[in-house]
Amino acid sequence: MRVSVFRKAHFNAAHRLHNPALSDADNKRLFGLCNNPNFHGHNYMLEVRVKGEIDPITGYVIDTKILKDIIQKEVHDRFDHRNLNLDTSEFADLNPTAENIAVVIWNKIRKCLPDTLELTIRLYETENNYVEFDGL
Amino acid sequence: MRVSVFRKAHFNAAHRLHNPALSDADNKRLFGLCNNPNFHGHNYMLEVRVKGEIDPITGYVIDTKILKDIIQKEVHDRFDHRNLNLDTSEFADLNPTAENIAVVIWNKIRKCLPDTLELTIRLYETENNYVEFDGL
Amino acid sequence: MRVSVFRKAHFNAAHRLHNPALSDADNKRLFGLCNNPNFHGHNYMLEVRVKGEIDPITGYVIDTKILKDIIQKEVHDRFDHRNLNLDTSEFADLNPTAENIAVVIWNKIRKCLPDTLELTIRLYETENNYVEFDGL
Amino acid sequence: MRVSVFRKAHFNAAHRLHNPALSDADNKRLFGLCNNPNFHGHNYMLEVRVKGEIDPITGYVIDTKILKDIIQKEVHDRFDHRNLNLDTSEFADLNPTAENIAVVIWNKIRKCLPDTLELTIRLYETENNYVEFDGL
Amino acid sequence: MRVSVFRKAHFNAAHRLHNPALSDADNKRLFGLCNNPNFHGHNYMLEVRVKGEIDPITGYVIDTKILKDIIQKEVHDRFDHRNLNLDTSEFADLNPTAENIAVVIWNKIRKCLPDTLELTIRLYETENNYVEFDGL
Amino acid sequence: MRVSVFRKAHFNAAHRLHNPALSDADNKRLFGLCNNPNFHGHNYMLEVRVKGEIDPITGYVIDTKILKDIIQKEVHDRFDHRNLNLDTSEFADLNPTAENIAVVIWNKIRKCLPDTLELTIRLYETENNYVEFDGL
Repeated sequence: MRVSVFRKAHFNAAHRLHNPALSDADNKRLFGLCNNPNFHGHNYMLEVRVKGEIDPITGYVIDTKILKDIIQKEVHDRFDHRNLNLDTSEFADLNPTAENIAVVIWNKIRKCLPDTLELTIRLYETENNYVEFDGL
Repeated sequence: MRVSVFRKAHFNAAHRLHNPALSDADNKRLFGLCNNPNFHGHNYMLEVRVKGEIDPITGYVIDTKILKDIIQKEVHDRFDHRNLNLDTSEFADLNPTAENIAVVIWNKIRKCLPDTLELTIRLYETENNYVEFDGL
Repeated sequence: MRVSVFRKAHFNAAHRLHNPALSDADNKRLFGLCNNPNFHGHNYMLEVRVKGEIDPITGYVIDTKILKDIIQKEVHDRFDHRNLNLDTSEFADLNPTAENIAVVIWNKIRKCLPDTLELTIRLYETENNYVEFDGL
Repeated sequence: MRVSVFRKAHFNAAHRLHNPALSDADNKRLFGLCNNPNFHGHNYMLEVRVKGEIDPITGYVIDTKILKDIIQKEVHDRFDHRNLNLDTSEFADLNPTAENIAVVIWNKIRKCLPDTLELTIRLYETENNYVEFDGL
Repeated sequence: MRVSVFRKAHFNAAHRLHNPALSDADNKRLFGLCNNPNFHGHNYMLEVRVKGEIDPITGYVIDTKILKDIIQKEVHDRFDHRNLNLDTSEFADLNPTAENIAVVIWNKIRKCLPDTLELTIRLYETENNYVEFDGL
Repeated sequence: MRVSVFRKAHFNAAHRLHNPALSDADNKRLFGLCNNPNFHGHNYMLEVRVKGEIDPITGYVIDTKILKDIIQKEVHDRFDHRNLNLDTSEFADLNPTAENIAVVIWNKIRKCLPDTLELTIRLYETENNYVEFDGL
């Protein structure tokens, strides 16, 4: 009996989509307004999904307090109220598209969980645009 | 690293559930109020999910501007503010249940996407009733 | 101590915006896609707000069961899964804009409530378009 | 062409997380505020997902009226406005974590559906904490 | 230039609607399932609205950090994961209807704010049932 | 019969809370993480409320197409995907708190509307923090 447990979290950040290997014209064509050199920003909403066996003692797959603390330390404390391009090492050389942010977050949370638990990350950049990554 | 990208869209339409091969009594029994010959309507909410590899140049699986334009042309321009039964060729001979609408939309978007991308459609008829189709 | 009590309800209906006193060209110019002669539709969401004194015996301003029954009888049973233009006497000669629907619903609920209670109606035609009427 | 059909429902209940096989200290350490002997409560939101072939006669995978009635009888009538620990036989000897409630509900609905339909349950304890179970 | 500032908060609690001055039959007739002697529960959502002049130095009406701390201390720390009837002095002799809870919370927050600020409380018991109180 | 009409819109922007007349220490104390010199950002959600008489010809208080175009020109085209501090003249010398942004937007929309219409602006910085201004 494998059950998925979900936990939501939020962080607010500035970012700019830009690939320094491309010309300014190509960056503007590819990323449009998102290429604004002065940045724009989002209320990111993160949904973390962890799947595993129910522990018969606790009735939990994972104590959501533990999951909450992992998200706080690995995601919120590093990205909230930050400029992803300027204030983080993760996106110093990586374009902070929603896709790339999701993969980065997946890797950070993955290393905090035992191998018996599966992990899926969903990241909402806006209410209408979001991405999901499960490591496969 | 295959990531799913989601994009939401909305359209408002009238429809009537009816199978002309059945008697009026059977239509009424099967579809109840939804069989009203004068139609009723919904704010349909569409969620399109596209899964594929992240392009290392752009950091995108698909530019959501491209996805938005496909949805606009294939779904919004054809179904928004329309009577699905009377104003569309797609449902002239097909009962416009949420299930059938989802399959129709999946087929329309599928033909606009490269084969390397997987496609899943979720269609909300109301906040409490919705369907999903992934082509399998 | 006057407290407001809110109750939500939903109904799904077809409608068409049209003023028969105007030319077809003017109707099309004024109402655009909403003038489609074959109708379109919405999931209407209704929020009813009733303000009054708290009854010291019950701790209620109004039993929400009573409010629910009034909404069921006056709104849901008459408008749900109906074509507002064709199936209702209320909009036989009245253009069913969100504004006019809100006033009609306000009048129908107002006559079911004692004079000591204030009434405000909010009607959502879509998530982004809605109206409010308080009788003043 | 297998399509998933979703239906949402709600119930409000009191509960307490507690394992009588553990000491009071362990229960408090494991379950924190949720171990309050006087109970606390939630607005549970249930999402039922049923996947199967579209019936060519009706255009339905399952008539959502049938699904609604199953949920009403198996879940709402038994758990709504109840104390899960004290008022139900299901949780007399089972810790009512979200995980365990989801498995219980899955089993209750599973036995009401034909084998040709797949079933997945998602249960929201709060907006930020929820679980999913598909029987596998 | 008076601006309103809103802040949301959540708490989960058990309660029972009951007036000990009434007979059991009257309590059951008035409060129905909400009169269950073993309690039921809700995810309460609280919206606090504070209206006042913008401070020209900060650009704030009130620092939402201050407002958050007031709500944490006056509401969350007292009511979250509690049984309102058994675990609180506020509702030991007061029926915990949404109306009465809103008035109690308004009074608790009102005494923490300067007189220059207006206060309105909205309390959601469920998504469909909520109340508002502004002290007038 | 005065009815309010609401229209929602969204814009994504970067900003930094900072008052240059204060010391760095005071800015940090007052604005905390929001004072980050590299900016952070939000998905701002704007709700515009216009109150007036229903036009008996159209059944509208205001054509929401007109309201949508005003919001697009006065708000979206100027603030979306911008850095409020660096890219706009409005906040070159004004701290872009939610309160100040709401007043700025109110003034911009107010001058586009006839005097017979009342205007209220609600601006959501996050789901939990928002402000409202009606010009009084």
